[in-house]
Formats: sequence, structure tokens, C-alpha cells
Amino acid sequence: MKIGKETIPRTSICTSNDETIVIRGRDLAEELIGKLSFTEYFLFLLTGKEPSEGLKAMTDATLIAITEHGLVPSVQASRMTLAASPEALQGAVAAGILGCGSVILGAADKAGLLFDEIVNRASAEQVSLDQAAFSVVSEYRAAKRPLPGYGHPLHKARDPRVNALFSTAEKLGVNGQHMQAAELVEKVIPDIYGKNLKLNVSAAIPATLLDAGFPIESLKGIPILARTAGLLAHLREEQQHSIGFALSYQASKSSVYEGEVPDGFTSST
Amino acid sequence: MKIGKETIPRTSICTSNDETIVIRGRDLAEELIGKLSFTEYFLFLLTGKEPSEGLKAMTDATLIAITEHGLVPSVQASRMTLAASPEALQGAVAAGILGCGSVILGAADKAGLLFDEIVNRASAEQVSLDQAAFSVVSEYRAAKRPLPGYGHPLHKARDPRVNALFSTAEKLGVNGQHMQAAELVEKVIPDIYGKNLKLNVSAAIPATLLDAGFPIESLKGIPILARTAGLLAHLREEQQHSIGFALSYQASKSSVYEGEVPDGFTSST
Amino acid sequence: MKIGKETIPRTSICTSNDETIVIRGRDLAEELIGKLSFTEYFLFLLTGKEPSEGLKAMTDATLIAITEHGLVPSVQASRMTLAASPEALQGAVAAGILGCGSVILGAADKAGLLFDEIVNRASAEQVSLDQAAFSVVSEYRAAKRPLPGYGHPLHKARDPRVNALFSTAEKLGVNGQHMQAAELVEKVIPDIYGKNLKLNVSAAIPATLLDAGFPIESLKGIPILARTAGLLAHLREEQQHSIGFALSYQASKSSVYEGEVPDGFTSST
Amino acid sequence: MKIGKETIPRTSICTSNDETIVIRGRDLAEELIGKLSFTEYFLFLLTGKEPSEGLKAMTDATLIAITEHGLVPSVQASRMTLAASPEALQGAVAAGILGCGSVILGAADKAGLLFDEIVNRASAEQVSLDQAAFSVVSEYRAAKRPLPGYGHPLHKARDPRVNALFSTAEKLGVNGQHMQAAELVEKVIPDIYGKNLKLNVSAAIPATLLDAGFPIESLKGIPILARTAGLLAHLREEQQHSIGFALSYQASKSSVYEGEVPDGFTSST
Repeated sequence: MKIGKETIPRTSICTSNDETIVIRGRDLAEELIGKLSFTEYFLFLLTGKEPSEGLKAMTDATLIAITEHGLVPSVQASRMTLAASPEALQGAVAAGILGCGSVILGAADKAGLLFDEIVNRASAEQVSLDQAAFSVVSEYRAAKRPLPGYGHPLHKARDPRVNALFSTAEKLGVNGQHMQAAELVEKVIPDIYGKNLKLNVSAAIPATLLDAGFPIESLKGIPILARTAGLLAHLREEQQHSIGFALSYQASKSSVYEGEVPDGFTSST
Repeated sequence: MKIGKETIPRTSICTSNDETIVIRGRDLAEELIGKLSFTEYFLFLLTGKEPSEGLKAMTDATLIAITEHGLVPSVQASRMTLAASPEALQGAVAAGILGCGSVILGAADKAGLLFDEIVNRASAEQVSLDQAAFSVVSEYRAAKRPLPGYGHPLHKARDPRVNALFSTAEKLGVNGQHMQAAELVEKVIPDIYGKNLKLNVSAAIPATLLDAGFPIESLKGIPILARTAGLLAHLREEQQHSIGFALSYQASKSSVYEGEVPDGFTSST
Repeated sequence: MKIGKETIPRTSICTSNDETIVIRGRDLAEELIGKLSFTEYFLFLLTGKEPSEGLKAMTDATLIAITEHGLVPSVQASRMTLAASPEALQGAVAAGILGCGSVILGAADKAGLLFDEIVNRASAEQVSLDQAAFSVVSEYRAAKRPLPGYGHPLHKARDPRVNALFSTAEKLGVNGQHMQAAELVEKVIPDIYGKNLKLNVSAAIPATLLDAGFPIESLKGIPILARTAGLLAHLREEQQHSIGFALSYQASKSSVYEGEVPDGFTSST
Repeated sequence: MKIGKETIPRTSICTSNDETIVIRGRDLAEELIGKLSFTEYFLFLLTGKEPSEGLKAMTDATLIAITEHGLVPSVQASRMTLAASPEALQGAVAAGILGCGSVILGAADKAGLLFDEIVNRASAEQVSLDQAAFSVVSEYRAAKRPLPGYGHPLHKARDPRVNALFSTAEKLGVNGQHMQAAELVEKVIPDIYGKNLKLNVSAAIPATLLDAGFPIESLKGIPILARTAGLLAHLREEQQHSIGFALSYQASKSSVYEGEVPDGFTSST
């Protein structure tokens, strides 16, 4: 069935013949394997260009910041899935990645759009970044749009990863307007919302990456790639000592049934 | 519901309090972010130990070797999924990872077990690696077990990535018995199977990684992590210029219906 | 980690003790197994109420309408996934379901919201359904919102499944205002958009289901449940005679590489 | 890339032209929609034949038996996924299905193979079903192969669903040798294993289905299709009142970190 107008699949990423695999114009075996780090290669694949040192190092830093944070929901989902389906490691990884959605890990790219809007507004309207931050955040508030990247369920002070990312960016000399915008948003929140909400890791990641030159459309890929690595570590632990069913036991033990029961039914607990 | 005996979920990967996220005994913000490459951090998460330079570089090399090979089935599945569900990048990545199973990308860990068996047999039975390779491969043949990591649908000569990985290992000085075993298997295949089957990338990856000290139980993770990066590059291209439906159009256009049809039905093509 | 305010998991679907599994207040073994059809049970699970005959029959009809339509993208993704990972049938089904997103199968619930808005507007503003349809569709046009459930890549005339669903609804006597709204939208499209777009199966499903009493929030579940059955049929065929790689071969054979190549590289085809 | 020998995708399930969608030789709109139940259609799609009344009713009964059992691991994984990614219902369903693997729900098809082996052995070796059951189960024990379909973490007596399925089969008159084999296995277990293990629902499903004529290769599809319906009910409840994060909070609250911590780190709890 034909859906849409295009019928010829076009790609610019890879081609090959019997002797050579070409990736973005380069010979994979001769020019890439053994020559780059995996992070450099990921950036090269994404953009077709060799990344600067600053972009490479900032990407490493942000990936490390978001790879692992303990038994979060997506890790639990993944470990339960492996416990139930040990024959399919790929399925357990997939189950964990499916939780990298809008609520938990999706804030990074939304925060990126927020900072980009502030930077572009300052430039387009010839106003200071402060003013642009104030007006953009005020519009979020007025539209009742959630402000992505501020506040955290556990870290009421600023998340320690934020300072680590910001100081890494400064050390690398890649800090710029997006990071400034991120800090300005934090500064204007109390006036606009009447409470403090600290810049969290989901804001620090796009702020530092965009300043380093990372493509804005691929921000969602950072938590997905990072979490894949974190999930693989958890799934190795799960294979050695399974807790998938213990996790679900604890969760279900605490649950309360609120529906009806037939006459004479008594709860077993 | 309680399944199994364990009820307390135990983990050694991560804990945290309000100020500090601890990963494998280290302070994430102070000791890890900005200090390691993503590959080093992945190895540290997996094993709890800082990797040697050789292991880190060999892991980079193998990840790069397997990240991308064009419009392979899992990439097509992923791009079709994004075309149909553009709201869920995580779902398209998951669909692609679900194809990292036993047939296509699963050969790496099976080949690792083969080389490990040869190395262990030589040591346990005090025979040469040559003899161990011959006897183990003969047993595979006798049991009609497929021999993982040899032959390739496209590269009839040795896959160019194999030489790149082997020369990287030699340059790093991490080459050892698993690589030897891999080459010996290639050498004995004609005698045992009556045909040439060249060592492919799925054999070169475990051979070089095991020599460099990579944990054998996590070999399956290498193609999964690598392909996640490759999928993200394809999905960025898909977002910019969609070919998901063009791929499915071409595939379905070539398909043949072999079932019955009602009276009077005529094919539209 | 605590996310959100709720800490106690509450559910009204199922509880059990050693002798009895309770589903929505009923004894599964005594009152449900062998007493209901699967479709009735699905509706009972969803809503907690026994469905009317009309709702049950209309749900059967809509599920059947959407279960199968040949080698569509999600079926191809699923068959490619099974070919690559035959050990994990569940993974191949999951890969297929991941394509049940907003573009292809997601139109059903969006069309349901459209019809509901028309019916509610007519009632709230005391206008005829005709007038409500005209004003709601005009607003979609003005807002450049895509109109869900009209037009089809293959069926330029009305999709034959539409008439089958509408006549089933009439025969069952469950036809009502949502179906009328669906037809009125088709009628006003030429005036508002300047072209004909026929009501397709994604519009007919919610129109008939809502008239029969199906819960509007669960409309997305109809294509997901239906496609699961269709995927299982395709995956059985795939296990008996695999075409997953043939599909991807045809698609990749037709693809065009538009990137650069190294000096001296010549395409193998 | 060409993988394998086949290049033409062949299928016998569906074809269509502008006016007609053909499913297994029938006109979908004229002959199927509004004429069959979803369960009948599923069986027709799978096999290409209209199912008998007994097969249809037995399939309904087994689907209902396995659709829902409360907050089991796959349901928890699915609800956590929806809480984290509410934009992608299909992703939450997929995450739940990925747990339909070998440990929890995969026993049904393995138990089917066990009963089939017993029935075939009795016929091939001209021995009684009793003798065949004894010898096949003894071989499982000797090979340390797990015996699928016997024992249950919660129901120490026979699972109430078993009797419901068996009495349904008897009422329908579809009971036969596979059910006998299932009961004989239960009878010989104490002698061979020295303990009682009751026939559970994963054994009762294939026993009754195979007697009713269900295709043995598709047994794994029964729990997958059933759970999809159950997941959709849980996900509707999750959308109305989310417990995904409460489940993960309870599970993580009970978890114990067993790794090292940096000097001066104190747990927050």
C-alpha cells in the first residue's frame, strides 16, 4: 500500500559494496574503527561532521549525568521484563526505553526548546536575555504550560549533577547563551510562580549541549542512548541476582483493592 | 503475588541521598561527570571497576564496528515505526532494538562462548589451541549446531571490519588467545565443513573484547548499545525526510499473494 | 524515589486469595470462564459492567474491521523482527504494536473526539447536528488541524469496511448521533476544503462504537487489540515461511544513497 | 542487503484492490464484518478455516482465564511505562507484552509440547497414556528439564481456573487425550519428583485447546492476545488514576543498596 507521496527510500548515512562500508562519506574500516571514541562516532553519525573537542566532551558529560539513577520506574520495568523473559535481553532493554517518554526523561528536549526560544527572542527582539527569559516564562505560566526542567521529586536543592555539568562546560569553554538562559529562568521563577524551582538535570543537559553545538532535534536521543547503557548494567546485575519479581512483590504487597468482592470472599493477607 | 523466594530487592549499582548520587561507590557529580568518556562510564557501570586503556579503546572500536550498516531489517522496522508513530521516538528505538536477537546481532555472544570454550579446553586438557579449535568445531558440526560468527550474506571475502578490529587490538597490545581461537576456527572450517566461511564481525567483536577483558556475560549488550546510537541517527534522518512508508511500499509492491480470492476479484496492480 | 503525591497503589480490577480470583467483583472461575465471549470479557474488564448485546456485537464488528489489512508497515516491522529474533514472539508482537501510533491507527480516537465535540456542541448550543458539524469542521480547517478519519491512500471511494460497519450498526439498532455526525462531516468537507474526502474506517469505528456505548477514552485500544490478533496470524505464517528478510531486501534494493563516498568507491549494484 | 535465499515476499493472508479487501479468500466487508465474533475471526485468520463451535468456545474460555490476574509484573511494567510516557499508549502495551516470555506466560506452549509428546508416544509406541506420561515425565526429570505447567506461587491447591477450563471442555464435549495427559502428568509427579505439584492454568490452557483443535504452534499467542486486553483495562485505570509511580516508589522503598559508598555518605531514609 502506498502511503504518502514518496516511493523511493533515500538515505545519506551508509552505503557499501563488497569491500567497503561507507559511513557519511568515510570508509568505516579504514577511517573510523580504532580512530574515534564511541561518543565521537555517535555525533559524526548524527550530523555528518566530526565534532569539536568541546562538543564531544560535553556529550560525554551529559550522557554520564543521565545514564543511571537507581531503581527508577524504567529500570524496574526492564528488570521485571527480564525476570519474566530471560531469553530476550533485547526485550528487557526495549521495555526500559519505552519509559523514556515525556514525563520522566522527555523534559530534556522540551527544556532545550524553551532555552532556544529565549535565545532567539533576545536576538530577534533586540532585548536582553533577562527580559526574554522573563517574557517567555510568563507566557508559559499564562498558557498553563508546564515549565520543563525545573524542580525534582528528590533533590529539593539544586541537583548536584547540574553544577557538575555547568562547571564542565565552563572548563571546556563551551558555555554560552543557552546556559545563561537556563539560569535566568531559575531566577525569574519565584517572581512568576511564587515559589522556588531549581534547575534540574533535564534543564542542564540541553543548556550545556546546545551551547556546545549539539543538534536541537536530537536532544531526546541523549537520555535514550544513556539509559540503554544504564539498563545493560542493571540487566547484567539482574542476570546474576534477580530482583525483578521481588520488586513487583513489594509493589503489589502494598497495593489496595478498592473494587467489590463476591459474598464470602476474604482477603488472604 | 510472590514469585520465587526473594522478597527484598538488592542492588549494588546506585544509591542516593539529597546531596549525593552514588554510583558503584563513587560520587557521580564529583568523580564521574566530566571525568570519563561515556564508554569508560559504561564499562565502570557494568563491572564496578575502572577499565584499562586497552579495554576502553577496544570497546570503542567494537561499538563503532557494529553501530551502523545501512537499511538493515531493524533499521527499517524502526523507521517504519517512527513514520507511523512520530510522537514516540522511544517506541521507534525500542522497535529497532527488538530485532537485535539471535539471528542477526545475537551471534556475537554465541561466538564469544565458542572462543571461550576453545581457550578453556586447551588449558583444561593441556592441548594446543589448534587442537582445541579442531575438536570444538568438530563437535559443533556433529551436533548440527550452527557455528556463530562465520560467513556473511554480503561480504564473501573477510569483512573489512574484521581486519580493522584485529589490527586495532594488535596496536593496543590486547590481542591474545580468544583472537587466536577465532582465527584457528576459520582455518579448520574448510576441513570440517568442506567450504570456506570467513570470520565475520560477529566473531571479531567477542574475540577482541574478551582478550581485552570485557565480561563475557555482557557481550549481547555491545550490539544493543551500538545499534541504539545508529538508530538515533536514522531516526533523525527519518524526522527530516521520512522514508518509512516508502520502504514498506517497495516491500509490499514486490509481494505476491498466494491465497484464494472470491469469485470475480481482480488484482489492482 | 518518590514521584508525585500518591504512594499507595490502588486498583479496582482484580484481587485474589488462595481459592478465588476476583475480577471486578465477580468470581473468575465460577462466573466468567466459559460464560462470556472474549469480547464481552474485554468490555467487562474495561468498564466493570456487562455490555449490552449491541455494544458487544458492534465491538466485534469494529475489531474485525481493523485487525488485518495485509503487509502494512507495522506488520512488516513485526515480521522483520521475528526473522531477526525468532526466540522472542512477544518482541515481534511488541514491535508491531509500537506502530499503532498517531499516523496510521491513531486516527480512531481522534475521530471519536471530533464526533463527540459535534454531538456535544449541538446539544450545548441548541443547534442542529448539521450546523454543529459545519462549525466544528470549519474550526479544524481554520486551525490547520488535520481532520482525522477522512481520506485513504488506497480506497478513493468510500472504504468498503465503512458500509459494513454502518449497516451492522443499523441492523443492531445502535446507530445514533455519532454516526450522523460522521456522515455530516463527510458532507461538509467539499464546501470547507474544496475537495472530497471519504469517511474511512478510522472514522467509522469510533462513530459506531460511541453510538453503541463504548467508553471514549479507550478507543485507542480497539486497533491495538485488533492488530495483536492480526500480528499473531502473520507471525504464524512467518514461522512457517519467513519473508521478513525478503521484505527488507526489496525495500533496501530500491533505496538510493545520496551521501558522499570516498575516492574510488563504486556501488556494487 | 540480501539475507537468506528468498527474495520475493509471499503471503496467503490478505490482498486487496480498490473495492475489496480479501482475507483468506473471503470478502472482509461482505462476509466477515458483522458476521463473526472477534475470537472466531482470530481463529479464521490463524488457520484459514472457520472454527468449530467447540474450538471457538474453548478459545474464549482460555483467553478469559489468562487475561487478568491483578498487578503481576508485566502489568506493573506497563503501568510504570504509561506513567512515564503517557503520550504513547502503544508503548505501554508493548512494555507489558514484552514480559509474556518463557518464565511467566511462556509455560503454556511448553506444556502443550509436553502433552503432545505424551499423546504421540502412546500412539507411536502402542502404550497406554499412563505409561507414556510416566516415561515422558521421567525423561524430563532425568534431563533436569523444568516441567512446564505444574505448581503456582500463590495457588497451592489446584488453581480454580483449571477446574473451570476442564468443566467447560467437558460441557462442550471437546475433552480428549491432551486433557487426559495433563491429568496423568499431575498424577505421576509425586512418584517421580517426590512432591505434589498441581496442574496450573498454563497446563490447562494447552490441554483443553489442543483437544479442541487449536494449532499447537500458536499456543504462545493465547497469553499475548489475552494480556493485551487485560493491559488495556489496566491502562484505562492508569489514565484515570495513576499508580505507576506509586508502584515503583513502594518497590524502591523496600530495596537495599549493597554496594560501597564514598566516605561521609549517609543514607537519606
